[in-house]
Amino acid sequence: MKRIAVILAGCGVYDGSEIHETVCTLLAISRNNGTYKVFAPNINQYHVVNHLTGEVTTEERNVLIEAARLNRGEITPLDQINLEEFDSIVFPGGFGVAKNLCSYAYEGENFRVLEEVKKVVKNAYQMKMPIGAMCISPVLISKIISGSTVTIGADKATADDIEKAGAFHKISQKGEVVIDEKNRIFSTPCYMLDSSIADIADGCDNLIKAIIAA
Amino acid sequence: MKRIAVILAGCGVYDGSEIHETVCTLLAISRNNGTYKVFAPNINQYHVVNHLTGEVTTEERNVLIEAARLNRGEITPLDQINLEEFDSIVFPGGFGVAKNLCSYAYEGENFRVLEEVKKVVKNAYQMKMPIGAMCISPVLISKIISGSTVTIGADKATADDIEKAGAFHKISQKGEVVIDEKNRIFSTPCYMLDSSIADIADGCDNLIKAIIAA
Repeated sequence: MKRIAVILAGCGVYDGSEIHETVCTLLAISRNNGTYKVFAPNINQYHVVNHLTGEVTTEERNVLIEAARLNRGEITPLDQINLEEFDSIVFPGGFGVAKNLCSYAYEGENFRVLEEVKKVVKNAYQMKMPIGAMCISPVLISKIISGSTVTIGADKATADDIEKAGAFHKISQKGEVVIDEKNRIFSTPCYMLDSSIADIADGCDNLIKAIIAA
Repeated sequence: MKRIAVILAGCGVYDGSEIHETVCTLLAISRNNGTYKVFAPNINQYHVVNHLTGEVTTEERNVLIEAARLNRGEITPLDQINLEEFDSIVFPGGFGVAKNLCSYAYEGENFRVLEEVKKVVKNAYQMKMPIGAMCISPVLISKIISGSTVTIGADKATADDIEKAGAFHKISQKGEVVIDEKNRIFSTPCYMLDSSIADIADGCDNLIKAIIAA
């Protein structure tokens, strides 16, 4: 039974973790006989977006507290993660990854990665764990694991930024998993391609199956 | 192709719609070749719960704006629903149903139902549409459709309140769908029973399949 740490960035596509991708990831782990624990950094969100209008609000929200909604309150601060307890770490997508876990959404190609996220990914990599990244999350991985190969689907601007960060981008289709065997990085495009929720569930299931088999 | 209106109550188990149940419902509709639109009332939440600690906060949030997170911003105010465009209406669970759509969570057996919710359910019932209710939502239905038969799993206190509201309760197991053929009410217990997320997905899939076949 594989034990997977799912690392979140809030709750909601525009300022946190994408909800369909997150739930489909947890479901895929459960259906493929894995176990999961959910983590998020205990920091304020970069901002809060009204998901009805798309406008930024004046509210302040905390990434850990909002991400707790995605797992019925069961969540642990990311800086308390013990990687010895896991076989893999996985990042669902959502703008929160590019706003709260790193600064890609507002600093572009020269973005910075949150120290505690960098540390967890580097340690998992050194422990030769399979690392999963969905949607926009491969951008984060590209900055931390130099020379890795990932996919964000087919968006040229984002793919170029991944290559500028020192990684390689491979175009992919809906539900497809790009596997970097050498670095043990698994990525799938999810909502970076125009997709139905059933496509998302397929992509998450394919990714989790590949990680569990790795 | 069946067209299903999914009616939400916010975003998060303790003050809104349960996220796993909502996403698994949308996924089940997509996988069973249905289409969906998502609705929620444009009202303030009864309160906001910090899902990390379980404590009520001093924040104010709007049910429609928070529920928008569950469908990537695509949502319509419930009072704008045109039932002619749908074949069925479905309510995922979560405490938000018992706090925002009705007052069951804080007024018990003598609870009131939000007028716009009552109107939509009554109209759907008169149009002989299949009505789906998950988790705690059958309590809401029990108050509106007198004499209906529903399930919330096996919780005696809640089942008793359903009977006091003028409906009948039938005990059910994980993933099981109780069908009231006469009134065309379909219910399944979801997280009212101790369940894995895979159990929830099974229950939602069984419910949506039964509704689509009805």
